[in-house]
Amino acid sequence: MPLKTSWIRTANSADCPFPLNNLPYGVFSIGEEEPRCGVAIGDQILDMAAAEESGLIALGDVPLFDVPYWNDLMAEGPAVWAALRDRLTALLAEGAAERDSVEPLLVPMAEATLHMPFVVSEYTDFYAGRNHAFNVGTMFRGPENALPPNWLHIPIGYNGRASSVYVSGTEVRRPWGQLKSPDHDKPAFLPCRRFDFELEIGAIVGVDSDGPITVQEADDNIFGYVLLNDWSARDIQAWEYQPLGPFQAKATATTLSPWIVTKAALEPFRVDTPPREFELLDHLKDCGPMLYDIDLAVTLAPQGQPATTISRTNYREMYYSSAQQLAHHTTAGGPMNVGDLLGSGTISGATKPERGSLLELSWGGKEPLTLDSGETRTFLEDGDTLALTGAAKGDGYTIGFGSCSGTVLPALEDPYAR
Amino acid sequence: MPLKTSWIRTANSADCPFPLNNLPYGVFSIGEEEPRCGVAIGDQILDMAAAEESGLIALGDVPLFDVPYWNDLMAEGPAVWAALRDRLTALLAEGAAERDSVEPLLVPMAEATLHMPFVVSEYTDFYAGRNHAFNVGTMFRGPENALPPNWLHIPIGYNGRASSVYVSGTEVRRPWGQLKSPDHDKPAFLPCRRFDFELEIGAIVGVDSDGPITVQEADDNIFGYVLLNDWSARDIQAWEYQPLGPFQAKATATTLSPWIVTKAALEPFRVDTPPREFELLDHLKDCGPMLYDIDLAVTLAPQGQPATTISRTNYREMYYSSAQQLAHHTTAGGPMNVGDLLGSGTISGATKPERGSLLELSWGGKEPLTLDSGETRTFLEDGDTLALTGAAKGDGYTIGFGSCSGTVLPALEDPYAR
Repeated sequence: MPLKTSWIRTANSADCPFPLNNLPYGVFSIGEEEPRCGVAIGDQILDMAAAEESGLIALGDVPLFDVPYWNDLMAEGPAVWAALRDRLTALLAEGAAERDSVEPLLVPMAEATLHMPFVVSEYTDFYAGRNHAFNVGTMFRGPENALPPNWLHIPIGYNGRASSVYVSGTEVRRPWGQLKSPDHDKPAFLPCRRFDFELEIGAIVGVDSDGPITVQEADDNIFGYVLLNDWSARDIQAWEYQPLGPFQAKATATTLSPWIVTKAALEPFRVDTPPREFELLDHLKDCGPMLYDIDLAVTLAPQGQPATTISRTNYREMYYSSAQQLAHHTTAGGPMNVGDLLGSGTISGATKPERGSLLELSWGGKEPLTLDSGETRTFLEDGDTLALTGAAKGDGYTIGFGSCSGTVLPALEDPYAR
Repeated sequence: MPLKTSWIRTANSADCPFPLNNLPYGVFSIGEEEPRCGVAIGDQILDMAAAEESGLIALGDVPLFDVPYWNDLMAEGPAVWAALRDRLTALLAEGAAERDSVEPLLVPMAEATLHMPFVVSEYTDFYAGRNHAFNVGTMFRGPENALPPNWLHIPIGYNGRASSVYVSGTEVRRPWGQLKSPDHDKPAFLPCRRFDFELEIGAIVGVDSDGPITVQEADDNIFGYVLLNDWSARDIQAWEYQPLGPFQAKATATTLSPWIVTKAALEPFRVDTPPREFELLDHLKDCGPMLYDIDLAVTLAPQGQPATTISRTNYREMYYSSAQQLAHHTTAGGPMNVGDLLGSGTISGATKPERGSLLELSWGGKEPLTLDSGETRTFLEDGDTLALTGAAKGDGYTIGFGSCSGTVLPALEDPYAR
């Protein structure tokens, strides 16, 4: 698909992450004003609360956008999602008749503070990148037993905490936790020493369901996607994760990029999942190209220093799609709700520079990375800023997500001091 | 503590689960009326919305009780919790001056429908009963390796789904899921064959926290307790749980008793945790008697038949208290919120008739139970009604929770048929 041109000139550059083809949804505020819904276009944000107030956007009887979340719009369902996208495209396209009415409703993105774009109902994280699962399994169990026997048959996942999901830019405090190193007899309560990131994409559920749904229905129910960093305390995880999975190792923070990129914007970038080693059972089978061709990159910037790109990979490396994960999530009959967030699992390519976590990049801390500054890293250090970016490249345009970044603050000296 | 007598005579019987000493909080409706907050006393419910409307209960500027959940009251904090309990005790005590004003606000419990008493923010389930962990570990790994190395040092837990938590009486549909029996090469998608219950107590968080809290603070933040049945699909669990823990095996349903028994009502029943095999680290140490002496029982009634008591145990069998679990839950810095629900983990005593799941009672299906009717059970069958009850026995009175029950419906013939 070619670039759709807009009368907002900055949206027409091939490198701009927010062309008319994208129209991602966020929540913004200016100064002390209340946060409200906005749409990114070029270097501007269309104030959706103002657009609705003015009557330029009218989707129903109830106002949907003068709130700090997109959940209300999601709950209106796919027909309204499509109507909104059509209307926004018409209002912002080159030659739009309403240009003079729309122009006063634009806010320069540089002046805005971005907030969480939706209320996370519940959060689930998966483990659905084969290279990541193979790498981690190899480190823990050797290459022969790297993939658990179930891995090629179901998208393995676990429930996480919605309460610690934050928007990009939120600082992340290094956690304390119970750890036990192999050379100690007893565990101790200490600041995490192996603090890590995980490069993921998050899918946002936009339609309620109650009972098992097919992969096609699951795909229909997904509203959009964000970049997701599943901050991980590897030493806490190693001690706690048997037998019931990660818990406090994943409870410190999960960071999201600020713009929800809609499924509609990503439609031209659909690609097939990889060849299947075992045929999937019927209820999990692909129903068309289920992944997206999205280039992903990770940068690490020590405090006061420039960023080094430490990983480049692509979302098409996943073994299971978000739709397959959502379908699996419903098999036992539990309801899924508008605002549920599904992390893809860490995305790693086949080669070393494509790995999506420091655990893999430094091979469990044994092979330190050298940054552009000459510093080395095995895991994250205090003051490090870790950022994820994503870009789907169309014909003369780019679909971007905005940055998904966070800076690591030192652990509290005494976490119980008041 | 002796019985506190009430002018509602049915509350003064030693066997009544709802004496003046209890005053548990629920949500009820009559006929087609909207559900609202109520307090159980004897065989009556005090309509809290009406009591507030009439001015008999006045705790602040905003109405708290004309809503179908107790979260708003919880959010007012422990001083208001105490003021409410004092006021209710005064209004309902033998000789109360306001009796004539209160009497018209009572509703016979027999005429009421009970609903979920609170909105579950997020749900976490623990694995903190030593006998249960030892039994399950022995079945899976043998008695030498029954307890994982971390078990005696941290309360092991995992996040569950809040969206599938239901009130007692809700029917539970046998789930489908991906299973693989040891004698098959490949997994299959089938109705669960090993559907089970787990006898637990749920603690409800009543105060928000942000960052690590001590065990004492955690105890202060707990609002009350309910009975909890963590329905479990053992065959789904066996196939899925490595390496990230249970997921769809626990997603079908979690059932709660309808009345929140407050921490204040249980205060006279505090007992110590068991002797520690290893000293707990400082941040998890007991800060007084942390468990409660609550007798627990489980009954199973096949369709159209009387119930057989299949287990009797006591909440004091836990190794970790809910306060210790909540303190651990905060160690990595994640926020906890009003309405968060923490399952204790399965409560099993040391002997066979004290086990809190069919997995343990039938030793993995190898030793069928015989019910009073002569029927046998390894796991739950369609039409079975499983009920939990709990009672703390005081001096001439009983603190009850109401029943926590559910009937197993047959699996759907085709879960994807519409």
